[in-house]
Amino acid sequence: MTSLLLRHIGELVTNDPTLGDGSPLGLLTDAALVVEGGRVAWVGPAADAPDADAVQDVGGRAVLPGFVDSHSHLVFAGDRSAEFAARMAGTPYSAGGIRTTVAATRAASDEELTAHVGRHVAEMRRQGTTTVEIKSGYGLTVRDEARALAIARVFTDEATFLGAHVVPEEYAADPAGYVDLVTGPMLDAAAEHARWIDVFCEEGAFDADQARTILEAGRAKGLGGRLHANQLGHGPGVQLACELELVAVDHCTYLDDHDIAALGDTGTVATLLPGVEFSTRSPYPDGRRLLDAGVVVALASDCNPGSSYTSSMPLCVALAVREMGMTPAEALWAATRGGARALGRDDVGHLAPGARAHYAVLDAPSYVHLAYRPGVPLVVDVQGPAALAGG
Amino acid sequence: MTSLLLRHIGELVTNDPTLGDGSPLGLLTDAALVVEGGRVAWVGPAADAPDADAVQDVGGRAVLPGFVDSHSHLVFAGDRSAEFAARMAGTPYSAGGIRTTVAATRAASDEELTAHVGRHVAEMRRQGTTTVEIKSGYGLTVRDEARALAIARVFTDEATFLGAHVVPEEYAADPAGYVDLVTGPMLDAAAEHARWIDVFCEEGAFDADQARTILEAGRAKGLGGRLHANQLGHGPGVQLACELELVAVDHCTYLDDHDIAALGDTGTVATLLPGVEFSTRSPYPDGRRLLDAGVVVALASDCNPGSSYTSSMPLCVALAVREMGMTPAEALWAATRGGARALGRDDVGHLAPGARAHYAVLDAPSYVHLAYRPGVPLVVDVQGPAALAGG
Repeated sequence: MTSLLLRHIGELVTNDPTLGDGSPLGLLTDAALVVEGGRVAWVGPAADAPDADAVQDVGGRAVLPGFVDSHSHLVFAGDRSAEFAARMAGTPYSAGGIRTTVAATRAASDEELTAHVGRHVAEMRRQGTTTVEIKSGYGLTVRDEARALAIARVFTDEATFLGAHVVPEEYAADPAGYVDLVTGPMLDAAAEHARWIDVFCEEGAFDADQARTILEAGRAKGLGGRLHANQLGHGPGVQLACELELVAVDHCTYLDDHDIAALGDTGTVATLLPGVEFSTRSPYPDGRRLLDAGVVVALASDCNPGSSYTSSMPLCVALAVREMGMTPAEALWAATRGGARALGRDDVGHLAPGARAHYAVLDAPSYVHLAYRPGVPLVVDVQGPAALAGG
Repeated sequence: MTSLLLRHIGELVTNDPTLGDGSPLGLLTDAALVVEGGRVAWVGPAADAPDADAVQDVGGRAVLPGFVDSHSHLVFAGDRSAEFAARMAGTPYSAGGIRTTVAATRAASDEELTAHVGRHVAEMRRQGTTTVEIKSGYGLTVRDEARALAIARVFTDEATFLGAHVVPEEYAADPAGYVDLVTGPMLDAAAEHARWIDVFCEEGAFDADQARTILEAGRAKGLGGRLHANQLGHGPGVQLACELELVAVDHCTYLDDHDIAALGDTGTVATLLPGVEFSTRSPYPDGRRLLDAGVVVALASDCNPGSSYTSSMPLCVALAVREMGMTPAEALWAATRGGARALGRDDVGHLAPGARAHYAVLDAPSYVHLAYRPGVPLVVDVQGPAALAGG
């Protein structure tokens, strides 16, 4: 087993508060890191670095844990740029647009979909993402949901069954029948490929009773629950997520005091998706208020063709700082360790000894540049799972 | 002289309304383009493409004119990320921070500054910028301004003398004396390197009388005038720019009806710099209002370490669409042909026959993706001047 020493690290973000400066980011300056067997074997001051089989000088750059993007919808076909342009000219966003992508996705071949996901995960990886959750939800038939998840599983362990994305057109008159399908044969076909089950709990999609039924059916099949909630307006989703002790509830744009108190009490991670607010020209969630209430916050891209077709975690960090009252440190933590918490993972999202050696090297002296230099592709080197090298 | 045929262009933006769909972008789909001697020799439908010595298949991607970034401050040293982080936590932006960069820049060697500019122009070029204006303004002595311009000239023909960026500390008690220096020995030393002269006309920098004096002195030495104005509040700068018939006036965040009418009447280009508003958390200029009044609008990065350390023209396009009411087409035009207009250039910013063959290839089927996919590094190939390949 060969070892690699990264030396001349200007700033190392470990995300371990017992290391470095003792902050949540566990910052070390003038640092070194040793990788062995795909794991972090040692971190510390450059002057104390042990010998290793190979040495890489990172030239004073910053090294961070790879981003953990805990919310994406990459298994799709088609393009909704015209809908985007119309929205920017004043047409409001509605969940109904999802059906456009469902039609295109059903019509695509397995090979097309696989190549499409491969291009997108490779694009994510170039921007520093080393763990990505991928949802189904543009198939909405037993066959199409199962194949979406089988394709997602080629690229990630974090595949999420989202048959309950929207009621498909053919069930428009029978939503209860669709919930039966989702919790019955569709779940049976999906469960072997997925780790998670998710529901879009929102006006125009699924209500709280339907969401509860679906999440409980998933749990009975061994799937962990997650939820889309409180994106387009106030609603019962966040309370439901907390009541069911889900690991994460995503969007959280419209929250009242009870929602925030429940999140603080249960530790359910609030995953904020600022790409959505950017691309739908909507008000941003109040990250500051959540953090001040002791809520665990994650950031994710929500990469999808309708409401947020960015794959850029650096942009999400910059938006969290510009628009959501988060400090650069809080935003970076949310995009790395926060994302890992939202997936119940302790092996990624940090760079303490024992963690997976999934990291990004920035062409910058500090992680602060992710927000200070918005839009600039600063990631120059990424080490992560081979599956994300994509196509 | 060898010729190159780009074929299988999914969408070609020519910026020539006599071509393609007749819109300001002059869009052609399923197109081809021939380059000969560094110029565009032919554009048209793929089916009609002539033979060429070499052929490149761009795989259905979009091809656009390279971005023309008509406002940047790349000749600097030092880092103001701590000031940025403090600002995001609530400390307001002030022009006084410029002096921090002046001290660092004066202390840097010629080699350090040249390498620094080289890294930044290469970073810009990777993001699709093929023409960049570069200002002095962090030297503020005769020697330091002249060397900043000599360094800028290594990389661009569009070097701008900005001795009147801020009154340096050593002249704090004698601003009139500093204006004499700028219009006297400093201008004498700068004029041989520069094409343009610029003034930061704003509360805390230079007033309208000082700006007029400096611009007229520059004009007498053969330099074209440009102006920073109306960034931090209402003021006389835009009116002055129009009265002097400057080619462009930059920032234009705070405008009243008279300012807009003057811009419409004179044709002075209003250059909007949304990276500044993003990175200072300020209200954005109203691009829609300017366009509706018939004003010519350009977009530029204002890349500088204080108020806007982005070099990303794609981000500026996305922000113009999200925040300034511009359509994706208007924003792209402003970032290409608009920038060229702001520099009085007709050889760049478009891809009609005769123009310089400076273009960017996007890993996307349409330019709309620059706004639809914010933050994603979509530029996969760039052809532009070798000087921008940088260090």
